[in-house]
Formats: sequence, structure tokens, C-alpha cells
Amino acid sequence: MNTFGRAFRVTTFGESHGPALGVVIDGCPPGILLDFPEIQADLDRRRPGTSKWVSARKEADRVEWLSGLLDGRTLGTPIAGIVRTEDADPAAYDDLKDAYRPSHADFAFDAKYGLRAWAGGGRASARETVSRVAAGAVARQVLATLGPVEVVAWVDRVGDLASANVDPARVTAAGVDGSPVRCPDLAASAAFEARIAAARKAGDTVGGVIRAVARGVPAGLGEPVFDKLDADLAKAMISLPAAKGFESGSGYAGARLTGTQHNDAYVPDETAGIALATNRSGGIQGGISVGAPIEISVAFKPVATVFHDQETVDSHGRPTVLRMRGRHDPCVLPRAVPLVEAMMCLVLLDHWLRWRGQVGRPPPIPRETT
Amino acid sequence: MNTFGRAFRVTTFGESHGPALGVVIDGCPPGILLDFPEIQADLDRRRPGTSKWVSARKEADRVEWLSGLLDGRTLGTPIAGIVRTEDADPAAYDDLKDAYRPSHADFAFDAKYGLRAWAGGGRASARETVSRVAAGAVARQVLATLGPVEVVAWVDRVGDLASANVDPARVTAAGVDGSPVRCPDLAASAAFEARIAAARKAGDTVGGVIRAVARGVPAGLGEPVFDKLDADLAKAMISLPAAKGFESGSGYAGARLTGTQHNDAYVPDETAGIALATNRSGGIQGGISVGAPIEISVAFKPVATVFHDQETVDSHGRPTVLRMRGRHDPCVLPRAVPLVEAMMCLVLLDHWLRWRGQVGRPPPIPRETT
Amino acid sequence: MNTFGRAFRVTTFGESHGPALGVVIDGCPPGILLDFPEIQADLDRRRPGTSKWVSARKEADRVEWLSGLLDGRTLGTPIAGIVRTEDADPAAYDDLKDAYRPSHADFAFDAKYGLRAWAGGGRASARETVSRVAAGAVARQVLATLGPVEVVAWVDRVGDLASANVDPARVTAAGVDGSPVRCPDLAASAAFEARIAAARKAGDTVGGVIRAVARGVPAGLGEPVFDKLDADLAKAMISLPAAKGFESGSGYAGARLTGTQHNDAYVPDETAGIALATNRSGGIQGGISVGAPIEISVAFKPVATVFHDQETVDSHGRPTVLRMRGRHDPCVLPRAVPLVEAMMCLVLLDHWLRWRGQVGRPPPIPRETT
Amino acid sequence: MNTFGRAFRVTTFGESHGPALGVVIDGCPPGILLDFPEIQADLDRRRPGTSKWVSARKEADRVEWLSGLLDGRTLGTPIAGIVRTEDADPAAYDDLKDAYRPSHADFAFDAKYGLRAWAGGGRASARETVSRVAAGAVARQVLATLGPVEVVAWVDRVGDLASANVDPARVTAAGVDGSPVRCPDLAASAAFEARIAAARKAGDTVGGVIRAVARGVPAGLGEPVFDKLDADLAKAMISLPAAKGFESGSGYAGARLTGTQHNDAYVPDETAGIALATNRSGGIQGGISVGAPIEISVAFKPVATVFHDQETVDSHGRPTVLRMRGRHDPCVLPRAVPLVEAMMCLVLLDHWLRWRGQVGRPPPIPRETT
Repeated sequence: MNTFGRAFRVTTFGESHGPALGVVIDGCPPGILLDFPEIQADLDRRRPGTSKWVSARKEADRVEWLSGLLDGRTLGTPIAGIVRTEDADPAAYDDLKDAYRPSHADFAFDAKYGLRAWAGGGRASARETVSRVAAGAVARQVLATLGPVEVVAWVDRVGDLASANVDPARVTAAGVDGSPVRCPDLAASAAFEARIAAARKAGDTVGGVIRAVARGVPAGLGEPVFDKLDADLAKAMISLPAAKGFESGSGYAGARLTGTQHNDAYVPDETAGIALATNRSGGIQGGISVGAPIEISVAFKPVATVFHDQETVDSHGRPTVLRMRGRHDPCVLPRAVPLVEAMMCLVLLDHWLRWRGQVGRPPPIPRETT
Repeated sequence: MNTFGRAFRVTTFGESHGPALGVVIDGCPPGILLDFPEIQADLDRRRPGTSKWVSARKEADRVEWLSGLLDGRTLGTPIAGIVRTEDADPAAYDDLKDAYRPSHADFAFDAKYGLRAWAGGGRASARETVSRVAAGAVARQVLATLGPVEVVAWVDRVGDLASANVDPARVTAAGVDGSPVRCPDLAASAAFEARIAAARKAGDTVGGVIRAVARGVPAGLGEPVFDKLDADLAKAMISLPAAKGFESGSGYAGARLTGTQHNDAYVPDETAGIALATNRSGGIQGGISVGAPIEISVAFKPVATVFHDQETVDSHGRPTVLRMRGRHDPCVLPRAVPLVEAMMCLVLLDHWLRWRGQVGRPPPIPRETT
Repeated sequence: MNTFGRAFRVTTFGESHGPALGVVIDGCPPGILLDFPEIQADLDRRRPGTSKWVSARKEADRVEWLSGLLDGRTLGTPIAGIVRTEDADPAAYDDLKDAYRPSHADFAFDAKYGLRAWAGGGRASARETVSRVAAGAVARQVLATLGPVEVVAWVDRVGDLASANVDPARVTAAGVDGSPVRCPDLAASAAFEARIAAARKAGDTVGGVIRAVARGVPAGLGEPVFDKLDADLAKAMISLPAAKGFESGSGYAGARLTGTQHNDAYVPDETAGIALATNRSGGIQGGISVGAPIEISVAFKPVATVFHDQETVDSHGRPTVLRMRGRHDPCVLPRAVPLVEAMMCLVLLDHWLRWRGQVGRPPPIPRETT
Repeated sequence: MNTFGRAFRVTTFGESHGPALGVVIDGCPPGILLDFPEIQADLDRRRPGTSKWVSARKEADRVEWLSGLLDGRTLGTPIAGIVRTEDADPAAYDDLKDAYRPSHADFAFDAKYGLRAWAGGGRASARETVSRVAAGAVARQVLATLGPVEVVAWVDRVGDLASANVDPARVTAAGVDGSPVRCPDLAASAAFEARIAAARKAGDTVGGVIRAVARGVPAGLGEPVFDKLDADLAKAMISLPAAKGFESGSGYAGARLTGTQHNDAYVPDETAGIALATNRSGGIQGGISVGAPIEISVAFKPVATVFHDQETVDSHGRPTVLRMRGRHDPCVLPRAVPLVEAMMCLVLLDHWLRWRGQVGRPPPIPRETT
């Protein structure tokens, strides 16, 4: 289904070159004054054409809000927004009508539905994420009314280059956006930029890894078994286009350690009462937040659209050669940063509202325990 | 919530040292003759005490089926099963009543609910997974009535040792279970065994990585946006106790490649019409299966219960020293193999039934395309 | 939540005098060629201003479809449609901004959300049902691809007048729409018309009862316990504005009978194998359809907007006198006929797809057994 | 599906003559001390064999609680309970194995699932409701921790006899249970008793109507469109075995009135600020509670099991004659009173928790406004 969340529910719709993309947000708390320029700023971060490293498609990505608002305040009823398609050029995709682009979803959609919106990837296009960013921007503002939650993501790795050196306790959105590739470690940023430039020059693309942190999340969010906070974050992140890997806290590196090396000790804390001496758990234990920063990573494969001849088949299984043209990023990572933040905000708010419904106590004071 | 799946819905209940653990399976297709010894065999693979590397707790883990069955056939109504607690010894946990074990869920549960079933971890205990394995075993048998689906998982890495060398196209359950640590690469298996023995001797624990493959899955399972097949697999896997990382197909390694290196070419195929020359996608593109084997990995942190003095705090924030006793595995990986398989079966069957409901065509012939 | 259905899911949004009303249909089977003029015809039946007995508000109620379609065919992805507000005149509602209209939802919304879109009832306006009719029209067409299902509703009673005399086995949409008040019993129709005219003249309103039948529904739709077919129909109908009562089959009259009088005998049938001699069950037994026509009724209270001075209070609890002006129907029944049909189509299709997903057999031949 | 509710979720399982019936309650607020004898008292009210007017089947109906509790307090994790089948006598049903009982679900189950648990109605048996009453009893106790909510139902009509004369504002559970047929109007009670006795003597059965009231419900529960409070009550009630009709507030009688007659005026109120002069709305406007008592009615058809020869067919469509024996009520109404109360408690609590999650304010003081 095209809906995410249980209490704060987000439904998206739209195909890449259809009339519009859109989102319906249901279950939003009422009476919250939204800052629309701020929402637009989040959308602009995702938008193509905003830096030299992202594709040249020109879309203003302005959300037209259709419901659920009165004088800028949430009514508690569904908030719907649409973004019109402005710069569609389906003709550019004519030669893709029948050919299956390697590592795209063309063949998968035909196998499932028996037809597909072939222009620009249709529903499988990364353009769908404009709806997620709009919803995430609303969620971020609602979260801010509940507590001092900060969600920040950054590019941690591009291709085979070494990871950036970023401190999750201190990284800021301003620091991230100060880099053209959204990596606040400026040395790594420069290297990443060079790597992306080289890929573009070669008509090729590169993958990479994004890390994200949520600070100020109170202890107690998440559920014990299936709906663990990290399980819902995993689903949220792997649902992003091109995402191939997810880590919570220590992740794959943690699997190399012993229990003695890995355990996070609890220590008395003057302010919070109890704190964690380390945070290999990534702020989540047994699926429930513990008041320490939530830390995750997401791996993205390289963009499948390369500018070389590629052998493939058409829908009849006949061999053909495909040469992509048009507007495509050599590296999706910089633009994926706001996507990761948006999905993180959606998961956190959804669990906050679920927690409030079931438990009913006011939330504990957020505890920065590491 | 304690329910997983939309069409094939599994609800689990029970605390580690409570009267029973249980599962309710809703939405099961009717008229399917279940093989109960086979279900028990799956449960026995998960059970503690079955090899020298797993904890010594003696539980027969026999499921008592309470509903949804007639003469061994599924009725289409909810199938409920319970496993009685036989070997509970809550007294053994008396000194944990108030102390927060490092990297366990004790503190998180108190923060969320204000109380917890302190004996043996309660709802956070890995013992909850007995319910999942029972449901997964039913799902595996239902899948077998739909197509020749095979789901096999194995231990791919233990601690800091190198990965095993296992071919996903050929690995068998028999090969996996032939190894005491469930690694079908016998050289790696011996090394893993030695590593676990060393950890146990040191009163310590080790983490590791499980890989899994599903062969024979038809193209067309999964949904385009939030409920991507890999997104639901990610949630399923990260919902397992101690899971910290997830990969679909090429995963984190794929993020290091260029698009040219990573893309899977479509090629004509005599049998299937269309096949994939490679499978870096792990059998899923745009969230939908493509007929190639589904390949994933899951990283598990080392078990948090180590047999050293650990400093921690009690529920009043006062420092205390904890020394764990009792029955605990030095390495959870061998027993987690059936858990990964169970969750994989649940996700595949759920999406198969959803697909059948929406699309209504008979499933395409499963295609082994790599 | 603002979503209805499990497999065929309909989400509506929009406030009466907001920018637009809209609907997102998720889970629609792919590849179905929709007849858009037919959808518009369903919408026109609901539209105000189409006869002398409905309110004079002029809205074209043209749906702009935004997604989920390719060359008029369903893609299997979400189908979103919006209807722009054209004739909004919020100023007409200025004096309602603070007064609570008797038997409207004004006070209830304030109590729940702390604010409300006061112009024209906002989310509580019957105008929201334009979204339901659009979705129901799509559902009706999808149903037609599955079997020869016919859903027909009609006005059975207006105010305190006697019920119409209509045979559910034979009533047609053409017959219904041939009456200005949508009652195919022409004698009753004339009486109903006179009753509505009298009410309008008196500045008053009248309630009434709608009956509906679904013919050609196969046996086997519905679920045994909570999601009984009649339970979901009850929810669907009582969710309509002003609905106060629901009956399945014999309803309240059936409660007056003895078992011997009420039971429907099974009889051998040459065509269908098995048939029902009578249909007091209304085509549903134990929550599951039996192949006989599904028969229901829905009671609607009189429209709350009367054109007399009414005493009420404002949001501070101060007494005030309210005099409604503007565009309002004296009787909602004729326009509610397409609403009842739309909700019935949604329930039937949702259960059909659920049935197909779980059971997987082709549907039995629809049996008209009474 | 076999689950009811969104925030307070109840899943039931079990067939009439299977090993056990059971219930899983998910989403229960934590830390609530349950009164188990009180739960048992609710179950005893539903139990057969408790008066001369209910069937003679002897079942202790003792719930064995398996999870979600610690020292009698709710843990916030799933609460599972089972009731063992003690008095099963499947042999008594041997002649029903192949014959379709008129107005039972036998044929419907076969049509849907292709097989059925034929003994005693299987999943379609009214015995399933033991699970609902157990869950409803828990819900009633949780509601009591949130506000002074009282839910009382009574038998208002039996067969063709006139309605009882009961004041919803004053009726008490003690008054209801003081009558052998659960009608607190003692004159009507005597008449109802005589009517049931006559039906039994004639080997026949009678239907009737139950009314119910919930007092002390705060304004603000329910959602505007599909999940209206009365829509969810309608689904809850029509999901009960043998239920054929539902009314909210004025119901079918209200449909006979004019708007001027029907409207409930708001009036200033010293205690509550605002009150309703009348309550034809039944405490709900626009789907949301307004602080006045919630009032509903439910119509039940006569029990289908009559003790006369009945003509029917077998599963091959061959005519046969059926003569029921065994234990059956001549009138289900007295035992349905606790079912109606249970479902009402489930709906109210579910919406209370949803409201708390979305809106987050403390609930307004319950207002008895009529």
C-alpha cells in the first residue's frame, strides 16, 4: 500500500510524468501553526537543479495545499498537498516505452501489473519522494511542538572513498548544507565532489552512504516486537529509491565486536538521572528509545542511469541496446539527505503519537545521555 | 503493535517467564494440509539446548494448536498456537528486578510502560521468537502450495572472522544444518566454532552476520513505494532481537561501486524469456521481485549477557555492579538462522497473497534468472 | 482515520469551502479501462442543483484525475482525483463562526480539535461525499469486470409517509432516476414529492429511509467475526452524513418474528444447485454472502438546517438566536441514493479482493437464488 | 480479519467445539490493576446455563490469562486469554456434517472456504463471543480509569411485544440483572418471560431489540468521516451473531420527523457550560460525541435453531429434512446484553486512546447534558 505510519499516516500518489504528485497526511494533531516557507525550504533541498551535482530538471516543486488547514493551522483533518508536473517531456522517453532499463523497475512493474507508466519511471521515479519530503517537513514541525527534537543527516561516504569524520552529537543542518555534496567534513566533502565530477565526466554514477542522527528523542518511543523503532526506521529507509542497506547504531561493525566491547554501560547522571556511557545501541534498546541520540546509516546503490550503451531486452525478450539521455544525477546522495531526514521525522512522530495514545503520560524530558 | 503482515497476519504474545508464549495467524488460505512434524522440526532448530553452542535451557517448545484447523487442514479462520513455559525459574532473576542490564531493554521498558516483566527479559526476551518460528513454519508450507519457493539462511560471519564462502544459488538447508554453527562452508564453520568456544571460555559473547536466499519467488511481489518487498524484509529482520544491520542484494558493498559496475543486464533466456546476467539487485528492483533469487543479509550484535562484573545503575539511578548468571548463548547466530528464514517466509507469503488479491492473475512461473 | 477498506482502500480529504475535495484510491486492480463519462454521471446524480428538490449550489463537480491512470487504464498505483471548490462563499457563513448550529457537528469539532473550519461545515459537510461517489463509481466499474454485479438504491420512505412498494429483484437504476425524488414506485414518488414541497414551504426539512440491493454477488464474500459483510455495510452506511439507522435483510421487522417464520429454507435449484426459498437474511448468513441479493436499508434524520429562528449558544456558552440562510435541501434522501450505492460498491469490491487474496479460487458463479 | 479496533485492538480465535476459544488484546495502557473476579462476573452474564431461559450447555467459561500481566497489572504488552472447551460433544452434530441448517452460516462457510468446522457452528458459533466479553470486560475497567463511564444495555423488546419503558438516564446494571430476561421494566420483563416460555414450548424461537446507553463519555470521541463513533458502533453491533439492525439516537423513528421536531437545541448550563435540551442525536453529532449519553439500539433476529422438521439441502444440493436437537436458547436477547455492552466498551476505549494520541489534551470533563 502507499501509506506509511499508523497514527501519523502519510499516503502518497503520483507518477513522474503524470499531472501531479501528491500527499495526504492523516492523524495530524490539530491547532499547530505551520511555517510554510520552512516546508518549502525542505522541498528545495530535495529539488533537482539546485546545485551543479544534481540533475538539471527544472521543477519549482511548489506544494499547493488543498485541505486540513485554516489560517495556517492544522485542523486535525487530512492535510492534502499536490505538486504539479511542470517540466514533463514524455517524448524524451519514447524509446524506453518497450525496453527494460537495467536495474530499473520497468520489468518489475510489467511483471506485477501487466502495464506501466513508462515515461520517466512512473510511480517508481525518485520524483515520488517530493511527497515524502513535504510530509516529513510537516512532521518535523509537529515534533518541534512536542520536544526539542533535531534530525540531521549527511553524506558519509561516496563510492569507494573513506567515510567522513562527523560527530553525531554536534553535526548541524547548517554545517551539512554548507557543503555542495552535503558532507559537513570539508575535506571529505571536497573529495566526494571530485569523485562525483569524475563519475559525471565518465558518463557514470556512484553510490554511497548517508548517516543520520535524531537528538532530543525521549526514552520510551517504539514497541517491543514487530514495530520496534529501529525496525520501522529500517523499513522507512529501505523504502527509499536505491537504498540497499541499513544500520542502527553500531550496525555491521558492531557484529565484529564481543559483548564486553559492545555493551553500553548505564551511569548515574546529574541532570537526567541515568545516562549511557557509550551509544553503540544507537539510542535504541529492545526496539525502544532510551533517550540517547538515535543513530542510523543508509547505503545507496549507484544510480542505474549511466550514459553508455547498455545491452538489455525489450518486453518480448528480444535483445536491444539502450542509450540513456536526458537529465540524471551522477550521484543521488546529496539529494537523498532530506529524504532520510523526512522518513526519520515520520517514524519518530508516528511513534510519539502512538506512545501518547497508549501510555498517556506526558513524555519524559528528552535526555542526551552520551 | 504485536502484529506483522497485512494479508497473512501474525500476532504474537507472551513474556519469557509468563505462563505461555503464543501466536495467532490470521488470513491463512483455507484447505491446506499442514505437516505438523515439519513445523516442530523448524521449532527444534530454534530451540535452546540443541547443540553445545546454544544455551542450556530445557524447553520442549511443543506448540499446542488451539484453533483454525480441522483434521490437520487450515480452515481459513485464525490459527492459534501456544507454547507453555516449562522451565521458568523467575527466582534466578531476583537480583535483576531493579538493576538495568547494560544493552538490554530493561530501562527502555520502564521508561515506556512504567513497569516491566523483569524475569528473563519478559516480552523483550528472544524467547518470543518461538511464536515467529511457528508462524514462519506454517507460512513456509503455504508458500510450497503456491510455488517451488525455497528459503535458506546460514551463518556467514562470526565476530571479526572472514565471511564464509557460500553460493546462494546452491546452498541447502541440509548443508546448513550439517554444521554445528549452521555455516555450510565447513572451513569457515570450524573457525566460527573455535571463535565461539573462545568467547564462551572468556565469559564473553560474539556477534556476526547471517545471509539468506529465497529461490523460486515469482516476479511481481512487492509494492512500489512504502511496502517495497525489501523494505518489508528490512523491517522483518531488524525486528529480530539483536539485529543491527540489513542488506538487500549488494548492500553496503554495492554503495562502493559505479553504476556501470553495479547494473544487472537483462538477457534473453530460452526458458524464462528474460533473465538477469547478474544479481546485484538481490532479486528486487524498485521494491518488486524480478524472478531472480532474493538475497539479504542481517547483522547481529554480540549477546549483551556477558559473565563479567558490569557497572550499571538501578531504577533510582544509583550505581550498582551486576554479575549475570544462568543460561545464555555465547553467540546467537546459529539459533537466529531459523528466525531469519521464518521472517522471510512471512514477508513473501504476505506479499504473495496481497498480489493475488489486487492483481488476480495466476502467478508467473518462478524464474531462476541468474 | 479518513480511509475506508482494507484491500480496496479509499482515503478522502477536503473541507466544504476549502480549495478542493479529493480522494485517493489505493489497491485498485491494474489494467482496467475506466469509463470516465460514466463516473461523471454518478457524480452528477449526487450533485446539488440537479432537480428542484435539491439545493441550489452550483458546482460542476468535475473530477480532475491526477495519478494512477495511463490512457484511461488503471495502473495499479494510487488513483487520485480532486474536485475544485468553485462556488464557495465563506462570507455567507460569517455569523456561524461562533454559533453552534443545533444538531450540526460545530460543537463536536470544537470539543475534539479545539478549532474548526466553520464555513459550510468544513470537513463535516455533506460535500465530502463527492469523494466517496467518485471512488464508488470506480469500484462499480471494477466490480463489473469481476461479475454481473448490480447495485441499486432508492428512496423508500419520506418523513411519516408509508413505504414505497418496490421489488428488490426487479428495481432498476433507470426506474429510480425516472422519479424526481428517486423512488421508482410512482404513486409513492408523487406523495414524497408533495411532502418535500410542503416541508420546503414551511421552511422545514424531512427525513426518510433508503433501501438498496446488490444483485449478482457471489456466495463467499465477507468474514466470519468482526468483518462480516453486513457489519462493514453497517459501518459504511452509518458513516454517511445524517444516517441514524441500518438494517440488513429483515432488520427490525425480522426481530418481531419467530424462528419458524424467519428462517430461509434451502431448496435444490436446477441452475445454481442450491437456492433460497426466501431471503429474510438479506443475502448474508453468518456475515458471508450466500448468492442471494444483498438487501439493506438506511434511515436518515431530517436535515438539521431549518429556516426558522433557533435558540442555541455560542462557543462561550452564551445564548444566541440563529437564523440559517443560503442553499440547503429540504430533504437529503434523493441525493443520498448515489451515496448509498457508492458505499455499497466499496464494501463489495473490498471484500471481493480480500476473498481473492485469501482463498485464491475463481469466484463461484453469481447465483440469484430467491 | 478477526481483529477489532485500531488503538485498543482485540483479536479473537477459536471454533465452537475446538480445543479453546481465545482473545489477544493489544495496545492496552500499562500499569492498570485489573479486577479479575469482575471480569469473570461479566463472562458469567454471557454464559449459557445461568437461567432457565438460556441453553443448558455447561461451560465454566473461566479465562486462563497467558500474557501481558504482572501481579494483576497490565504490562502494556498483549494480554492473551483462553477458555478451554469443556463440554464439547461433536458427535451430537454428526447429522449436520453435510446438511445446511436454514439461516445458519453452514452453506456460506462452505462457499467461501471450501470446508468448515461443522460441529456446533465452528467459528460462526455464538460461543465466539466469550472472547469479546472477556476483552470488553478489560476495556470497561480501563475506561473506568479514564473517566466515570457507565455502559448499560437491556432487553427493550421481545418478538412482537411492545417496547419496555426504560429511562436511559437512570437505568442501572443492577436493575437490568434483577430481571430474568434482563429487562429492568418489570411489567415488560414478565411479558417477555411469558413470550419466551411460549416460544420454547412451541419448539420455536423469538427475536427482539436491545437498547444501550453509555453515560459519562466526554465530548470529542470519534472521527469526522468514515470512523464516526456511531459508524464504528454500527459495525461493532452488526458484527454480533444474529444482529440485523442498528440505530443511533432517534434511529428509524427519527426519520419520520421534521428538522424542527428533531433538532437538539444547545442551552447554557451552569455546570458544563453548554448542554443539550434534548438528545435525539443519541450523544453523537457529525460522528463525534458531544458529552450527552450515547444511545443505540440493536435488533436481533430469532434464533435459527427451531425444533421442528425443516426442509433443506445437503452439500450436493439434494433435498433433506433436518431436525435439530441439543442445547439451544429460545431467545438470545438476555445473553446478548453483555455482548452489546462489551462491544460498546471496545469502541469507546479505542476512540478514547485514538483521541488521546492525536489531540493529546487531557479529556474534557464528561458532561451529562440532557
